[in-house]
Amino acid sequence: MNHMTGPVPTLSTQPMIPPMNRSTFRVTALGGGHGLSATLKALRIVAAEHLTAICTVADDGGSSGRLRKDMDVLPPGDLRMALTALCDDTDWGRTWADVMQHRFRSKAGISGSLDDHAMGNLLIVALWELLGDSVDGLRWAGALLGARGQVLPMSRTPLSLSGMVHPKDGGRAVRMTSQADIARAGSLGRLTDLQLDPQDAEPCLEAVTSIELADWVVFGPGSWYTSVLPHLLLDGLRIALGETEAKRCIVMNLKPDTAETSGMSPADHLNVIAEYAPGLRIDSVIADPRAVARPEREDFERSAANLGATITYGHVRREAQQDVHDPLRLAISFSEVFHA
Amino acid sequence: MNHMTGPVPTLSTQPMIPPMNRSTFRVTALGGGHGLSATLKALRIVAAEHLTAICTVADDGGSSGRLRKDMDVLPPGDLRMALTALCDDTDWGRTWADVMQHRFRSKAGISGSLDDHAMGNLLIVALWELLGDSVDGLRWAGALLGARGQVLPMSRTPLSLSGMVHPKDGGRAVRMTSQADIARAGSLGRLTDLQLDPQDAEPCLEAVTSIELADWVVFGPGSWYTSVLPHLLLDGLRIALGETEAKRCIVMNLKPDTAETSGMSPADHLNVIAEYAPGLRIDSVIADPRAVARPEREDFERSAANLGATITYGHVRREAQQDVHDPLRLAISFSEVFHA
Repeated sequence: MNHMTGPVPTLSTQPMIPPMNRSTFRVTALGGGHGLSATLKALRIVAAEHLTAICTVADDGGSSGRLRKDMDVLPPGDLRMALTALCDDTDWGRTWADVMQHRFRSKAGISGSLDDHAMGNLLIVALWELLGDSVDGLRWAGALLGARGQVLPMSRTPLSLSGMVHPKDGGRAVRMTSQADIARAGSLGRLTDLQLDPQDAEPCLEAVTSIELADWVVFGPGSWYTSVLPHLLLDGLRIALGETEAKRCIVMNLKPDTAETSGMSPADHLNVIAEYAPGLRIDSVIADPRAVARPEREDFERSAANLGATITYGHVRREAQQDVHDPLRLAISFSEVFHA
Repeated sequence: MNHMTGPVPTLSTQPMIPPMNRSTFRVTALGGGHGLSATLKALRIVAAEHLTAICTVADDGGSSGRLRKDMDVLPPGDLRMALTALCDDTDWGRTWADVMQHRFRSKAGISGSLDDHAMGNLLIVALWELLGDSVDGLRWAGALLGARGQVLPMSRTPLSLSGMVHPKDGGRAVRMTSQADIARAGSLGRLTDLQLDPQDAEPCLEAVTSIELADWVVFGPGSWYTSVLPHLLLDGLRIALGETEAKRCIVMNLKPDTAETSGMSPADHLNVIAEYAPGLRIDSVIADPRAVARPEREDFERSAANLGATITYGHVRREAQQDVHDPLRLAISFSEVFHA
């Protein structure tokens, strides 16, 4: 395996980017799932060369959950999605991104053991097993895709997420100990006391370094309790996020009211950030004006001001799919925020 | 998926081979499993740029058998092994070859659904599902590895192998209908009446073309009944192999007596070729002198002469593992044969 420890070769299909001012501009985005992918697709347009994605590693559902349980590895799904969002925009990069995202499906009538596994999850796990380090494995997966920037786990230790759910009917609060359950908890009641286990796990050193060196750190959009807040629950990462000289930006969701955040207003989304990371200063909040109803505006703006943030309203949603951020429109808002 | 139909991009790590005389020299090797890999590792040294491997597609055991059954695809295992034997000899090529050969193993106490699947089998199946054609998928897998030459299935149709086993104790002959069983049949008795089903399946057109254009066609080494002979059982392929103007070479096994060929002498190995492909002319047979015992020599040489072949004796086995061909030593024998 000696030949694997050297630098990862690059592809001829990866065009050389001439040095520009932007090459000294560093952005680190924290999140998970589709939300982080949306941010990365936008950020690669405005900060392609020094872009770092940091993913949660508390997923315990689906293909990732099965791999985590069987193989004792980090859940690879969020990392895979972030990598494919950064794939090289060529036949090569897009084809391998499609391969990474491909899900196996047995023929009719057969319940196969591969069903619903994403090919990229398996490839990432194979690289981890061969190379023995999660960051090295992700670098090789990134090299295959010709990915812009790097993708890192928040920790090399698989984490678990838990939280108290207070039922709407006033019944006794119960602790939910699975990320997959917490993602649906909003429909049952209010979530409090979100915790990572172990919350003193070592954060990924490369992730901490990227936060320290960043010009901007971006949170969200995405599942608030399972993709955004977990980054603030890990002691080492929260401290790095508080101490960095980088400016901090939150991208609001387009649909505040989901299975996870039922009944929560845009202001509530900002308030829980303050609750879980007291004293964390936020510089900028990006929101689509159509996702903050008129009567909610005043509260929302007060919550942003409490964090120290100014709000940039931008039409960032895709016209065809109104719950999805449009990468180009979001890039425009990032550009406004970063160069304000 | 539009972007997948264009030419497969190549890697920067793939050195440019300057045009040489050898670039007009074409070799096609037929086989399967470890035997074909040994031949390919040797042939890439003497005919790297116009090398084609044609693999059997009748495997129904192990990881390949499970995938074939669940997903209705060709068994990918032999194709994967041939591709990795041709990988680019760089960090990039060797790393992805290691990834392709990696087998999943669940942690102790867990019986995981991925156990024993080779990563490369899954990757090839994902490419087949995405691209919709087995040859296209193999081209992309080859591009990932920076593979020299191309790897083709003998047919795009999954095939089944069957044969009659005549028990040593004189009991009633039984038909075995699984390649995995036939591979062990020699220990039970004599194998006759080997058949492919469907034997009139369309051979892979690209494979037929490579046989037509070849300067040399190479059979073996490998499991005689399950990797070498099947190529002669498919009508279309046997006809192409008989009609081509290419010269034909057989590489003998180092250990004639295996679970598949128990009791068969080196001469018997050549005689079954004549039996299943009557009239097929062979030009050259490569054998290690230590694998043909003195008393067997006369028979062996007579069988070779019956096929039209001269024998090239060469010390082609690896010193450390005596049942394994050494790629460099085998390359020397190929070179002697091709340029005699």
